[in-house]
Amino acid sequence: MTDPTTIAPSQTQSSANGPLLKQAMAARAKVIEGTIDQLLPPTTGGDARLVDAMRYATLGGGKRLRGYLAMATASLFDVPDCQSARVAASVEMLHAYSLVHDDLPAMDDDDLRRGQPSTHRKFDEATAILAGDALQTKAFEILAEAETHENAVVRIALITAFAQASGAAGMVGGQMIDMEGEGRALPLEEVRHLHALKTGCLIRYSAEAGAILGQAKPELQQRLRSYGANIGAAFQIADDVLDATATAEELGKTAGKDEASGKSTYVALLGIDGARAEAERMAKSAIEDLAPFGAQADRLRDLAYYVIERRN
Amino acid sequence: MTDPTTIAPSQTQSSANGPLLKQAMAARAKVIEGTIDQLLPPTTGGDARLVDAMRYATLGGGKRLRGYLAMATASLFDVPDCQSARVAASVEMLHAYSLVHDDLPAMDDDDLRRGQPSTHRKFDEATAILAGDALQTKAFEILAEAETHENAVVRIALITAFAQASGAAGMVGGQMIDMEGEGRALPLEEVRHLHALKTGCLIRYSAEAGAILGQAKPELQQRLRSYGANIGAAFQIADDVLDATATAEELGKTAGKDEASGKSTYVALLGIDGARAEAERMAKSAIEDLAPFGAQADRLRDLAYYVIERRN
Repeated sequence: MTDPTTIAPSQTQSSANGPLLKQAMAARAKVIEGTIDQLLPPTTGGDARLVDAMRYATLGGGKRLRGYLAMATASLFDVPDCQSARVAASVEMLHAYSLVHDDLPAMDDDDLRRGQPSTHRKFDEATAILAGDALQTKAFEILAEAETHENAVVRIALITAFAQASGAAGMVGGQMIDMEGEGRALPLEEVRHLHALKTGCLIRYSAEAGAILGQAKPELQQRLRSYGANIGAAFQIADDVLDATATAEELGKTAGKDEASGKSTYVALLGIDGARAEAERMAKSAIEDLAPFGAQADRLRDLAYYVIERRN
Repeated sequence: MTDPTTIAPSQTQSSANGPLLKQAMAARAKVIEGTIDQLLPPTTGGDARLVDAMRYATLGGGKRLRGYLAMATASLFDVPDCQSARVAASVEMLHAYSLVHDDLPAMDDDDLRRGQPSTHRKFDEATAILAGDALQTKAFEILAEAETHENAVVRIALITAFAQASGAAGMVGGQMIDMEGEGRALPLEEVRHLHALKTGCLIRYSAEAGAILGQAKPELQQRLRSYGANIGAAFQIADDVLDATATAEELGKTAGKDEASGKSTYVALLGIDGARAEAERMAKSAIEDLAPFGAQADRLRDLAYYVIERRN
């Protein structure tokens, strides 16, 4: 019988290296946190409330999966951390903006985020809308700055990939399909498409960003794009499993919301065991994508299992 | 006695050329409209509702003041229209996103925009939030594309100026101060600061954008920045006067909202005649900024009077 509290851990090959990955992620998260803190304005002056809300929404925790991906893939190409940490901060700001807007009453109407009041609950709706807006702007601004990369062509490539991943043909488009699909039973292919857009595009971009920063050969860039896409899919399936099996305390947000709101999930379509098997397949594909990279990519291999084994 | 329906037209020097400006603006507006139409995705596919809302919010009218400024200043440096029209489309998309979010119930709660239902009234709040988000992303994406300028350094300069004008230290910051100031009597200096951010920064950027595209000398770039800042200030003061004196039919939106919502306006602080005189001073400064430019800049001179004489 499957233990309902973990995702098929007996089948994993890399979970023995979990502690190394957790150390690496914690170390990167600290760097990313410090970089966000530095890049956002301090909280003084007439726009203090706006800046407070921007800082509240982005600082103070989270695993920084997207930021970690950007930094870890960049390190494969010996990109200095001071550059990749800026790209990581940028993608985490964009991710934070999307959460702030998703939590709004007119959207998912969520009161909790990482165990804390969501931004519109802590401040108010207008402030949350504007803080999200300004975080998006800041995310693009950071990529345009010379400190991110000395070569303007590289910065432009980052901005283009970032915009495509996060706009109407990416994250925001996926969020829209998700809203429209509520209460309807979507077929598996549509659920896959929606998640590929909603969460997949930004995770894929994060893995690709390191290759862009590192001016990697197109073939290696494509490998990391594919790795990111697989990680994104595995992550989302695991998220559905978590929503169905974990407690609110573990999640730091309301649990069981998907079923309550009639969302089409992998769990609804495949069952819990079926969803776990699908996540496992995605994780294995992600690891295959890393074939051209040596031991330097071991933490990225561990990450493939981490995303399907996590409890929050 | 001052005629209350116009802003001191007897003192204007350029209003005789108004028809030439109106023709030029109408011609540019048509080009900008066509460019936005081309740059936004067509309305097919799963994200049709999102794209519909993006198109609804940006297409179908408006004077395109910001886009006109970008195209008219670019033409001073012989930038091809196909490039400046893209920058114009980008700034109009960003302006449209700000209006969509400003009109939301949690913000200004406005049902009408240009005489039509505002985006959240035509669609729904969630769609309006997402359409605004995606329009901002698209505005940055366009600037990053090679079609906007062959030189990546120029594109980066545009993106940087654009982000600074529209983020927490620009438009969004100004909107926040405006929300916080509601119901309080702000002193004139704070009202000036708030408007310099809220509407001024993006109008200033628009005038500057043509100079950036044209790789103008720093001194000329600075002249157009200053021109844009003065136009922006004149525009906002005239807006306050219009809100106090024009009808809803003329405005295409609810009139008298500023007084009803207790906003601190130039009219409340200076009176209608005082506000008109201030707008006139700004328009004159804008014209002085154009001193280094010859007859090619005549329409930009006309524009300084146009913004304070307009009825909507």
